[in-house]
Amino acid sequence: MEQVCAGIDIGGTNTVIGLVSESGKICCSETISTRAYQQATDFAAAISETVKKLLRNSNTSLTAVGIGAPNGNVHTGAIEFAPNLPWKGKIPLADWIKTSLNVPTILTNDANAAAVGEKLVGAAKNLTDFILVTLGTGVGSGFVVNGDLVYGADGMAGELGHVIIERHGRVCGCGRAGCLETYTSATGVVRTVHEVLEAFTEPSLLRTLAQTREIKSSDVTEAAAQGDLMALDILDDTAEKLGFALANAVAITSPSHIFLFGGLAKAGDLLLQPLRGYFESFLLPIYQNKITLALSALPDDAAVLGAGALAWRLHQTR
Amino acid sequence: MEQVCAGIDIGGTNTVIGLVSESGKICCSETISTRAYQQATDFAAAISETVKKLLRNSNTSLTAVGIGAPNGNVHTGAIEFAPNLPWKGKIPLADWIKTSLNVPTILTNDANAAAVGEKLVGAAKNLTDFILVTLGTGVGSGFVVNGDLVYGADGMAGELGHVIIERHGRVCGCGRAGCLETYTSATGVVRTVHEVLEAFTEPSLLRTLAQTREIKSSDVTEAAAQGDLMALDILDDTAEKLGFALANAVAITSPSHIFLFGGLAKAGDLLLQPLRGYFESFLLPIYQNKITLALSALPDDAAVLGAGALAWRLHQTR
Repeated sequence: MEQVCAGIDIGGTNTVIGLVSESGKICCSETISTRAYQQATDFAAAISETVKKLLRNSNTSLTAVGIGAPNGNVHTGAIEFAPNLPWKGKIPLADWIKTSLNVPTILTNDANAAAVGEKLVGAAKNLTDFILVTLGTGVGSGFVVNGDLVYGADGMAGELGHVIIERHGRVCGCGRAGCLETYTSATGVVRTVHEVLEAFTEPSLLRTLAQTREIKSSDVTEAAAQGDLMALDILDDTAEKLGFALANAVAITSPSHIFLFGGLAKAGDLLLQPLRGYFESFLLPIYQNKITLALSALPDDAAVLGAGALAWRLHQTR
Repeated sequence: MEQVCAGIDIGGTNTVIGLVSESGKICCSETISTRAYQQATDFAAAISETVKKLLRNSNTSLTAVGIGAPNGNVHTGAIEFAPNLPWKGKIPLADWIKTSLNVPTILTNDANAAAVGEKLVGAAKNLTDFILVTLGTGVGSGFVVNGDLVYGADGMAGELGHVIIERHGRVCGCGRAGCLETYTSATGVVRTVHEVLEAFTEPSLLRTLAQTREIKSSDVTEAAAQGDLMALDILDDTAEKLGFALANAVAITSPSHIFLFGGLAKAGDLLLQPLRGYFESFLLPIYQNKITLALSALPDDAAVLGAGALAWRLHQTR
C-alpha cells in the first residue's frame, strides 16, 4: 500500500485537504468550508473524516500530516488568535489531528506552507532568500532566509499582513489599526471599493454591480480588465500600499525574489505592473533593480503540497 | 608567536582596530578618525598601517581580518553607498586590506559584527533569534534567525535604519524620506532638538547649551537625567518612533530578544522605559509580553570582537 502524507491548507473561507506522495504529487484532494463549523472540534473531526475517506478511496496509508493555517504556531501546533477564522483563542489542532489519525502532525502558518511548496515545485527552486506573500482573506507571508523558513523564537514569524502601514488607519481584526491586510487582502480591497463608492459619484461597473449583490475582490480585477477607471484606481492604490510594505520588508531580509500568491494575485499584471513601480520607488537605492517581483508559479494547491512536504520532512527527521 | 585576527569596527565618526585572540579576547586596539581621510584608499592604508603597528607592538602574527562597516556587503567585500561615510559609491575595502595584509578578509555590516559579538560574549549567548540595533551616527541592525546572521540574497540585509516610518518625513542621507535613522540615530535626535528649540519657547538646559556650542545626542541624555522636560519629551518621541519600527520588525522575524547598542543606548532607562511601553502598544497581540527589550551587555568594543570572531570563523572554514 503506497505511503502518503496529508497536506491541509486552511484558509479563511475554504480548507483543502490532499494526500501527497513522497515525490511531491497530490494523489487526490477535497475541499470543505472553513466557515461551516461553529466549534473548532467539529472542524477538526471533519478534517480527520475527510483524510480517512481519501485514504480509503485511494487505497493508501498515512505517514504524517502537515497543516498550514492562519496564525499557525509551529512550536505549539496551535492556531493562535487568528482574526480571520471563526474560532477564538488557541486551537490545538495539531494535537487533535495527531490523536485522531495517530500519526506525527506538524502545523505552521499557511503562507509558510505555501513558501515550502514554492521552493519544492514552484518558482523558488534553488532560491535561498525569498518571500512568499499570500493575498487572500487576510495577508500572510512566508520568509525564507539562508534556505530555511523563518519560524521565529515563538514559531509565529512572518506576519507581514500585520505590519502597520498607516498609523490610525483602518481597524483590523487583530485589534489594532492600519495593518497591511486591512488594505491589500481580498477583503481589504472590498473595503476600499465601499469607501470609494461612498466618496465619489463617478459611474463604474463596480457601482452597477454593488446595486445587485455583494462585491468580491475578483469583481475589481474583472472590472479593471475591462478598463473601468474606478477599479484600476483601486488596484493602483492597493499596489501602492503593498509596494510600500514590501520595500520596508526588503530592508530587513533582502530577498532575491518576492512571490505573490492567492486570490488577489490572480489580478496578474493589473496588480503587478503598478506594484513594481511603487515597490522600486520605495526601495532603499542599494536594493533597487535587484529584486524579482513575480506571481507564484504554483497552482492553487501549492499550500497543500507545501504542507504535505513539511509532513514528509517531519517523518524523515524522526 | 601567538596568532590573532584583526577586528575592525568602522563607524561614521571613529574606526576602532583591534587584535582578537582565538578565545575572543581583545589583545590591544587603537582608534583612528574615520573622517580624517578624504580618499578611501588613504583610509585603507591607515587601517593596514595600524594593524601592522599593533602586530609589531604585541609580537603577534595575523591570521585573518574581519571588518564591520556601515552598508558593508559580505558578498562583495565592499562598502556600498554608505550615506554616513565620506566616500561615495562602492569601496572594495576587503580587497584592499587583503592585498595589503595578505590574509583572508571578511567585511560585513557593522551591526552584524556587533550581533556576532553579542552572541559570543554578550547577552545573546544561546539565543537563536534576536535583533541587535545600533543607535549611533546612523541606525544599523543585525538580525539573527535560526542561529545565523541574515545576510540576504545580496549580502546587504538588516538595514532597519532605512525602514520608512513616516511617509514624507525627514530627508535621509539615502536620498529618500522618513527613514527610521533620521529620527532615532544620534544625529536624528540632534535634528529633533533643533526642531523643538525652533518650534517652542520653553526654557530648557538644551536651549541654554545650544547658545554656547553644538548640541550632541549625549546632551539630551544628560539633560533628561537632570529632569529637563524638553529633553525627556525628545527621548519619549524618539522611543515612540523606535518602538513602532521594532514592533513592525517583530512581525517579520519574531525574535526572543532585541538589544540596543551604541551611543544613544547609553541613555539607558531614560530611553528604555518609554520604549518598552510604545513597543508593546504597537505589537500584534500574539507577540505582546514575549520579547525582551534590553541594552546590549557588551562593552563599546563589541563590534571589534564580533568582526574578529567573523575573521576567525572565516579562517576555520577554509
